[in-house]
Amino acid sequence: MTQFVGLLMAGGTGTRFWPDSRRARPKQLLPIGTELPLLEAASKRLQPLIPPERQLVVTSAAIAPAVRALLPALPPEHVVGEPAGRDTAPCIGLAALLAARIDPDAVAVALPSDHVIAPEDAFREHLEVAAEALAEHPESLLVFGIEPDRAATGYGYLRRGEAVGSFRGKSVYALDAFVEKPDLPRAEDMLAEGGHSWNAGMFAFRPAALLAAYAEHLPELVDDLQRLAAAWRGPDFEALMDEVFPTLPKVSIDYGIMEKVQGTLMLPLPLSWDDVGTWGSLARLLQPDSDGNYIRGDAQLLGVSGCIVSATDGVVAIKGVDDLIVVHTPDATLVCRRDDDQGVKQIVEALAARGMLRYL
Amino acid sequence: MTQFVGLLMAGGTGTRFWPDSRRARPKQLLPIGTELPLLEAASKRLQPLIPPERQLVVTSAAIAPAVRALLPALPPEHVVGEPAGRDTAPCIGLAALLAARIDPDAVAVALPSDHVIAPEDAFREHLEVAAEALAEHPESLLVFGIEPDRAATGYGYLRRGEAVGSFRGKSVYALDAFVEKPDLPRAEDMLAEGGHSWNAGMFAFRPAALLAAYAEHLPELVDDLQRLAAAWRGPDFEALMDEVFPTLPKVSIDYGIMEKVQGTLMLPLPLSWDDVGTWGSLARLLQPDSDGNYIRGDAQLLGVSGCIVSATDGVVAIKGVDDLIVVHTPDATLVCRRDDDQGVKQIVEALAARGMLRYL
Repeated sequence: MTQFVGLLMAGGTGTRFWPDSRRARPKQLLPIGTELPLLEAASKRLQPLIPPERQLVVTSAAIAPAVRALLPALPPEHVVGEPAGRDTAPCIGLAALLAARIDPDAVAVALPSDHVIAPEDAFREHLEVAAEALAEHPESLLVFGIEPDRAATGYGYLRRGEAVGSFRGKSVYALDAFVEKPDLPRAEDMLAEGGHSWNAGMFAFRPAALLAAYAEHLPELVDDLQRLAAAWRGPDFEALMDEVFPTLPKVSIDYGIMEKVQGTLMLPLPLSWDDVGTWGSLARLLQPDSDGNYIRGDAQLLGVSGCIVSATDGVVAIKGVDDLIVVHTPDATLVCRRDDDQGVKQIVEALAARGMLRYL
Repeated sequence: MTQFVGLLMAGGTGTRFWPDSRRARPKQLLPIGTELPLLEAASKRLQPLIPPERQLVVTSAAIAPAVRALLPALPPEHVVGEPAGRDTAPCIGLAALLAARIDPDAVAVALPSDHVIAPEDAFREHLEVAAEALAEHPESLLVFGIEPDRAATGYGYLRRGEAVGSFRGKSVYALDAFVEKPDLPRAEDMLAEGGHSWNAGMFAFRPAALLAAYAEHLPELVDDLQRLAAAWRGPDFEALMDEVFPTLPKVSIDYGIMEKVQGTLMLPLPLSWDDVGTWGSLARLLQPDSDGNYIRGDAQLLGVSGCIVSATDGVVAIKGVDDLIVVHTPDATLVCRRDDDQGVKQIVEALAARGMLRYL
């Protein structure tokens, strides 16, 4: 049986779920369209295959204590806090080195912690498929692709090449190209054409293979990441993180590594998936009422249709309006048009600009 | 100098200011368009003329403790709790008897406790005018009229007759008739015609004169009210209120007394007045921002116009909508159209019907 190490990336700030998400309580710590907080659900989703002592979470240092409290089954040192966000390449590079310390022969899976995926057993089955493909191609990296159900313009795409083999009855492909976030006509073309998946930032690799790629394409990171990994679980690790991590170059793994590496594999995930990106995504995660409203928490609606409503520790009462997003929390209420859920970011920026940090 | 007794009627439940107003915290206990809670402002407004020991508040028994806490300068027995609402005739009749116990020769002024009136010195000057008129007409009742500034259909009107005299340079009239709440054309006619004032439920009288009117027009109330008044400030008063008050007929002073009595005087109040009837009334009490929004508390608006916004212990953030009412409290948020502020009542009824009493 394959020995995995699970690497959960939990660095997001989740501005777009304000007012539920705050600086001290970003989206991955919240239950949004789910029973459990998203990060807890992500950890539990792996557990039949990857026990907590083989899971590792990389998050911001500010919320590392909250993450340890949420995931008490993980050893405390398995929650690594970044003192500053440096995008995904330093984060996943460090995580890969720590995975090698846990088990140098493991297959590492690096996964965002704030997505919704179902069914969970099919997801785990695909991790096993990835591991079998990597057993045959140990030098390769593998990227999982989400099968598109609409012409989304908010994601990068993965174009598949030839099938390189079949594992557990599932085809694994050579990755032909990364496609940047498209405009709508291009997205519609790709959907019609087939052979394109969304890039959800989900990877599998042997740590040695990823580190070889860093040595080739991001050599300026390697010494620092190795110093940090050597100090892990020791008394000086946090101080060294504070000293070194903020000095690392800010670069994404897609740009710094994945787009440059040859021989990458691609495994489509024919599953239900959502990145729970904005309040509007609740319309994909919840069942509507008879007037097409999507409701989370207590609500009283009279003559209301097409609204997305969230009430935390309270009730939202609405009369005679359509197609709004209304979110209640004890110290803040948000109202915007449903087609403008990206606008939450501007509200947060405006509050910050006025120094109203107590609401952020 | 005239010795007044001030009778503040504070029995309202204020459903229309939900979610700020609750069963345990009706409108008169809240600051709405004012610095102070409305009842506290009403009491303070009288104080240069009527000291706290000559003020009396009639309210519901449920909130009497909260009223005593709000008005600590009043003797505790001067806050009388009704165990059940019986409309205004039992309430004002009892208050008049208690006024007579405080000072049988006083001029009593019976005033709602949840209106905004300015300027305050001009208001008190008109109370003095009323007292002088009643000194010449001791058997009469006097009703104050609000000078209409629009063709309102939500109030009853007072039609004035001949002037009966001038006091401190202000004319006092014979009351010609009460006019029931009109339809819009009739309201427009009255506004154009002149000679009509709004009936705001504000009266002045010598207690003996009002009690004579009760003896004639509501004799079935007199014995019970006198029993209650005799027990006031004694150990059995509350128990007797619990026993007797709920059995009294439910009748308004307008219908039961004022419309039947002859010789009533009418004194116009050429003042700024508002009954703060609904959330929409904040547009008359607050200054608008440059986009025509009326804001109470912390708010962050982006591309928003014509909204009425209230935030208690929190912030309301709105983007890209117009002409809404948005109210935040820690455990409830209200959203409705600005032209539908009466609809709050239906929301409260719907919550009650579902048994969600924790929000009421």
